[in-house]
Amino acid sequence: MIIDCHGHYTTAPGELHVFRDAQLAALRDPHGGVVEAPRISDDQIRDSLEKAQIKLQRERGSDLTIFSPRASAMSHHLGNEAASLQWARVCNDLIYRACQLYPDNFVGVCQLPQSPGVAPGRSAAELERCVRELGFIGCNLNPDPSGGYWTDPPLSDPYWYPIYEKMVELDVPAMIHVSHACNPAFHTTGSHYLNGDTTAFMQFLTSDVFTRFPKLKIIIPHGGGAVPYHWGRFRGLAQALKLPLLKDHLLNNIHFDTCVYHLPGQELLAKVIPVDNILFASEMIGAVPGIDPETGHNFDDTKRYIDQLPLSAADKTRIFEGNAKRVFSRLARHLEKRNSKQAMEKPQ
Amino acid sequence: MIIDCHGHYTTAPGELHVFRDAQLAALRDPHGGVVEAPRISDDQIRDSLEKAQIKLQRERGSDLTIFSPRASAMSHHLGNEAASLQWARVCNDLIYRACQLYPDNFVGVCQLPQSPGVAPGRSAAELERCVRELGFIGCNLNPDPSGGYWTDPPLSDPYWYPIYEKMVELDVPAMIHVSHACNPAFHTTGSHYLNGDTTAFMQFLTSDVFTRFPKLKIIIPHGGGAVPYHWGRFRGLAQALKLPLLKDHLLNNIHFDTCVYHLPGQELLAKVIPVDNILFASEMIGAVPGIDPETGHNFDDTKRYIDQLPLSAADKTRIFEGNAKRVFSRLARHLEKRNSKQAMEKPQ
Repeated sequence: MIIDCHGHYTTAPGELHVFRDAQLAALRDPHGGVVEAPRISDDQIRDSLEKAQIKLQRERGSDLTIFSPRASAMSHHLGNEAASLQWARVCNDLIYRACQLYPDNFVGVCQLPQSPGVAPGRSAAELERCVRELGFIGCNLNPDPSGGYWTDPPLSDPYWYPIYEKMVELDVPAMIHVSHACNPAFHTTGSHYLNGDTTAFMQFLTSDVFTRFPKLKIIIPHGGGAVPYHWGRFRGLAQALKLPLLKDHLLNNIHFDTCVYHLPGQELLAKVIPVDNILFASEMIGAVPGIDPETGHNFDDTKRYIDQLPLSAADKTRIFEGNAKRVFSRLARHLEKRNSKQAMEKPQ
Repeated sequence: MIIDCHGHYTTAPGELHVFRDAQLAALRDPHGGVVEAPRISDDQIRDSLEKAQIKLQRERGSDLTIFSPRASAMSHHLGNEAASLQWARVCNDLIYRACQLYPDNFVGVCQLPQSPGVAPGRSAAELERCVRELGFIGCNLNPDPSGGYWTDPPLSDPYWYPIYEKMVELDVPAMIHVSHACNPAFHTTGSHYLNGDTTAFMQFLTSDVFTRFPKLKIIIPHGGGAVPYHWGRFRGLAQALKLPLLKDHLLNNIHFDTCVYHLPGQELLAKVIPVDNILFASEMIGAVPGIDPETGHNFDDTKRYIDQLPLSAADKTRIFEGNAKRVFSRLARHLEKRNSKQAMEKPQ
C-alpha cells in the first residue's frame, strides 16, 4: 500500500473561495453580517477530485492520500479568531465530505483555527471535533500565523503546550506547515515554506518539548526544509549546545516527508535521515505540478525518485506505508474499520 | 592555491566588543556622547589570529582567506544609521590591519553600515572607501537589517539598485549574509542564516535584477541555504513562472559557497550546481567549530569533503581557486601587486 502523507485540497470548487472572500469582506464592512457556509454539491466535489488528485493517484500508483485543506489558503493572518474558526470548520467539513465520498482514496487531516497572538490551545476544540466526530487522523500546525513576520512565540514556548497536550491525548501527529506569506520578503512556496520547516526544526532542537511531551509526533514537510542538506551543521550545533545526539534528542518525535522534487535531493534525504523517520509524500497537486524537462516526468511525482533509491524493498515499504501507519496511529484503526464496513456491504 | 572565500574575524580582541557595548549604551543615554574607536595593538591582532585562523589555515591546508568582520556582530538592527556607520568603519579598519599584518593570509571584504529602513545606497560611500582606500575586494550585504522581522523591501526592489550600481562600478561581488537574529523565532546560525540564503535566492529568482545589472555578482553562502537540496523545486517554480532555465536566469550572477558541514551535503551541492558556480569556503572559525564524532575531524574542515568528491583535479582547482579569482575580480590584481611588492622587498 502506498500512502501519501501530504496532500491538500488545492482543487476545491470555486464556491469555497467566493465564501472566503465574502467572509473577509464582511469583516471589513461595519455593517457586515455573518456569511453563510458555501453550498457545494457532491457532484462538484467528485468533479474537482476525479480529474485531479484521484486521476494522479491512479497514474502514479499511490493508494491513499492523507488529505487536508489547501495550506496556503489557511491564511491565519487574515481576519480574526472567529473568522479563522469559521474558515477552518468550512474547510475541514469539505475534507470530511471528500473522505466520505472516496474512503479508499482519502483520510482527513485538519486545518486549525489559529490567529496571530491567539493562544494555540484555543484550536484544541476544532482539533477534537475533527478527530472524534469526523474521523480525522492529524492536524496541520502553523508555526507562524502572522504569515511571514514571525510574531508569535517559538514552538518551544509554553504558549504551545495546550495544543501539544490535546494532540497527545487524541494520539494524533501534527505536520508543521506555514501558510501564505503576506510579507513581501518571502515567496510562499519558494522560501516561506522551506524557511518554516528549517525554523521549526531549530526551535525544537533548542527546546525540551520532547522531554515534556515524549509522545508528541511531528512531521516536518518539504523534506525538512534545509535540514537534511545541513545535517552536519545541525549535529554540530547540537553538540556545541551540549545536547544529546540528534537521533536521541529529536528523531523519536520528528519525521520528514519526501516532498523533494528531484532525485539528488531524495538521495541525500535517504542517506542522512534514518529510514524510520521518512514518510512518503508528494504534496500533489501543489506548488510544482509541471513536467521536469530533464526527466520527462512531473517534478512532484516523488514515487519515481524513491523507486530509484538504493534501499531494500523492506525499507521502501516503511517509507511508503509502515512509517505513516506508525506515526498516524489512528490510521490503522481507520483502515480496519473501513475495510470491515466494506466487507459487510459487499453482496454475499 | 586554496582560497577560502568566507571567513569572519570572530576572534577579534575583546576591546572591540567593549567599544560596541559602550557605543550602544551611549545611544540609550540622553547624555551619552560619541564613544572613541577602540585602541587595539598590532600584537593583540597577531595574537588573536595566529592561534586561531592562521593556525587552522596551516593545519587544514588553505592559503588565503577572504576575510570580513564577524557576520552575527554586524547587528544592523541595533542603534541607528550613524551608529552602524561608526561600527562598520571600526570593524573594517580592523580587517584592514589584519590584512596588512598578514598579506599572505588575508584579503578584506567589508561590512556595510546598513540600518532598517535606511536606503542601501547610503552604504555606497563606505563600500567605496573600503575598496579604493583599503584594498578590499567585496562586501557582505544584509538582506534583512531588521534581524529577523524582514521589514525592508526584497532584493528585487529598486530600493537596492544604488548599492548594486556601486558594486558594478567598483567591480566587486557581494556575499548575501544576514546578521544576528533578534526575533526569538530564529536561531541565528541554525535557522536565520539558512533562511536568509533561501529567501535571497527566491527574491532574485522572481526579479529582473540581473537583466538590469548583468555584471552584478552575488555569492549565497552556507551552500545556498536550502536551494541545492530543493533544486528541482526551484527549477519547477521558475518553469511555472515562465522564466528561463535557472542556469540562464541566475547562474551567470549567483554563486554558492561550500559551507556545508558533512560529506553528503557537499556531494549534493557538486552534483546539482555547475562547478563554475561553487566557491570553496569554510566560515572558520564560525558556528560549528567542533569535531564530528562520525569522522574525527572538524565539522567545518570543508576541504576534506571536497577532496573526497568524484570531481576531476581541474574541477577541484576551479572550486578552490579559479572561481574565487573570477568572481572577486580585484583579487587577481591584488595578488599580482602583493607578489611583486614582496619580490622587490626580498633581499637580492
